[in-house]
Amino acid sequence: MAKTIIGVMGPGKTSKDIRDSAKELGRLISKNNWVLLTGGRKVGVMEAASEGANRAGGTVLGILPGESKSEASKFVDIAICTGMGGARNNINVLSSDVVIACGMGAGTGSEIMLALKAEKPLILLHASESLISFLSELPYSMPRIVAEPKEAIIAIQNYL
Amino acid sequence: MAKTIIGVMGPGKTSKDIRDSAKELGRLISKNNWVLLTGGRKVGVMEAASEGANRAGGTVLGILPGESKSEASKFVDIAICTGMGGARNNINVLSSDVVIACGMGAGTGSEIMLALKAEKPLILLHASESLISFLSELPYSMPRIVAEPKEAIIAIQNYL
Amino acid sequence: MAKTIIGVMGPGKTSKDIRDSAKELGRLISKNNWVLLTGGRKVGVMEAASEGANRAGGTVLGILPGESKSEASKFVDIAICTGMGGARNNINVLSSDVVIACGMGAGTGSEIMLALKAEKPLILLHASESLISFLSELPYSMPRIVAEPKEAIIAIQNYL
Amino acid sequence: MAKTIIGVMGPGKTSKDIRDSAKELGRLISKNNWVLLTGGRKVGVMEAASEGANRAGGTVLGILPGESKSEASKFVDIAICTGMGGARNNINVLSSDVVIACGMGAGTGSEIMLALKAEKPLILLHASESLISFLSELPYSMPRIVAEPKEAIIAIQNYL
Repeated sequence: MAKTIIGVMGPGKTSKDIRDSAKELGRLISKNNWVLLTGGRKVGVMEAASEGANRAGGTVLGILPGESKSEASKFVDIAICTGMGGARNNINVLSSDVVIACGMGAGTGSEIMLALKAEKPLILLHASESLISFLSELPYSMPRIVAEPKEAIIAIQNYL
Repeated sequence: MAKTIIGVMGPGKTSKDIRDSAKELGRLISKNNWVLLTGGRKVGVMEAASEGANRAGGTVLGILPGESKSEASKFVDIAICTGMGGARNNINVLSSDVVIACGMGAGTGSEIMLALKAEKPLILLHASESLISFLSELPYSMPRIVAEPKEAIIAIQNYL
Repeated sequence: MAKTIIGVMGPGKTSKDIRDSAKELGRLISKNNWVLLTGGRKVGVMEAASEGANRAGGTVLGILPGESKSEASKFVDIAICTGMGGARNNINVLSSDVVIACGMGAGTGSEIMLALKAEKPLILLHASESLISFLSELPYSMPRIVAEPKEAIIAIQNYL
Repeated sequence: MAKTIIGVMGPGKTSKDIRDSAKELGRLISKNNWVLLTGGRKVGVMEAASEGANRAGGTVLGILPGESKSEASKFVDIAICTGMGGARNNINVLSSDVVIACGMGAGTGSEIMLALKAEKPLILLHASESLISFLSELPYSMPRIVAEPKEAIIAIQNYL
């Protein structure tokens, strides 16, 4: 039986606050025995979430944009080399049972949009007022907006 | 020498106003001897822009999500079958010299984000206040916001 | 109505004989008012077929592996930037109404296989005895084996 | 640290002999603490290798062509939904540290070709004389030809 995969999407460059949230998300995802999926790189939210999950003993799946594992975070257990750049964001979304966006950037924004399109359960952590206002205009069901990692986990449990 | 390609991105389901703008964009793109690129399907902005360009004698390039040309608009001259669903949005962006978003939906939103990531010249027509406010928070140069097709064409000319 | 697209697949590094065939294929494809599709790069069969079609006044569509048009042959009219490396070979096949393999290499071999899988009309020019013998063992209908470009064109006309 | 991934490629429709080999390959890959990668579907070599690895307590990674986990074998632990059809074969190859082809079909043939192109260590089990003869004509280093699963494992150990 395929394990439940929780995708944590977020920018490569971001603040310490966002990275701390990502790390805590990773830790809690592992504690729930879910597999963590990230974009796999050794920066920002990808690295922080992977570290949190890895240190808690969980499995970390990294879906890399390039063709080589050398770009993977050292906390990734299973590195998928897609060789398709930004188009791999769609694989991140399709492979996740629930998608969490933690922080914001262009890649993360594309993953939110692709998750809406694929009708994936979607949770936003650290979402700005203007993002929420923008999403509320679109003809899709609104993502769950949460204020902290613990709340994201409860939302995931409700989706599964 | 490869011809200049102008990508018009927009939703499959949309209002008559947006479709009229898309049709006019297609017409003006042809008049300028640029190739029009769309998502290729026979609905919404894709169909309307393709019709405008086709009736003005231009070349229409449709980048389809599926594996068969049967999903292409009848106004498409050159149909590319990617067979990769939403991940083809990245090809739309990478292949366009300038990207115009006309109206909004989840696919269009993902193309805006991927265009920012790829640092493509980007023009928004019919952008809402909340979209503009959301984009202004991101660490990328702001897209050009225009109010009508004619203005989009001037912006393209400035970019090329 | 989408135009008929004929894909010519072949290696980047190859002999003058194979390049001459590719050039003649490109020329004849243009004379028949079909669009030529190649892998778009400025080497080997891609460049030669593109040159032949371009000099005969035809339209050349180049499906590039990378993210930038700078890798395109100067004979390409419409450059598609896939940014997905070798995975773009599947797009070459899916977008062609008929696929011709001219010469052999690993990329070309993958395109022959993907064409069989997609059940595309497939023509082999300069096929070796061992390739033919290998393909005849597979549970697919055999490609048409031809000895020169003119024969390939007749085979295409029969398929369309 | 990313775990070593061994990809087993093979057809969906095949003989009992080939499926038995695939199952034994899966078992031995698990016993060596490598992750098994397959095309993920519930048929042929994919299912057999996955079953062998799963019953031996190993981790099975399935890279699916479609957008839904429902097409995965029940022996897959981690299902990646690529939504890109045959183009996912390139991801199978790029993500594997060593690629084994077990039996033959069009998809498997494309994976052999893409592995040569990516210069991945490549092992062939149940290769026909005509395949070997075809590959020996190509300008790439020859894959290792083995006669049984045990021999494939020794070849992997030598590559790593």
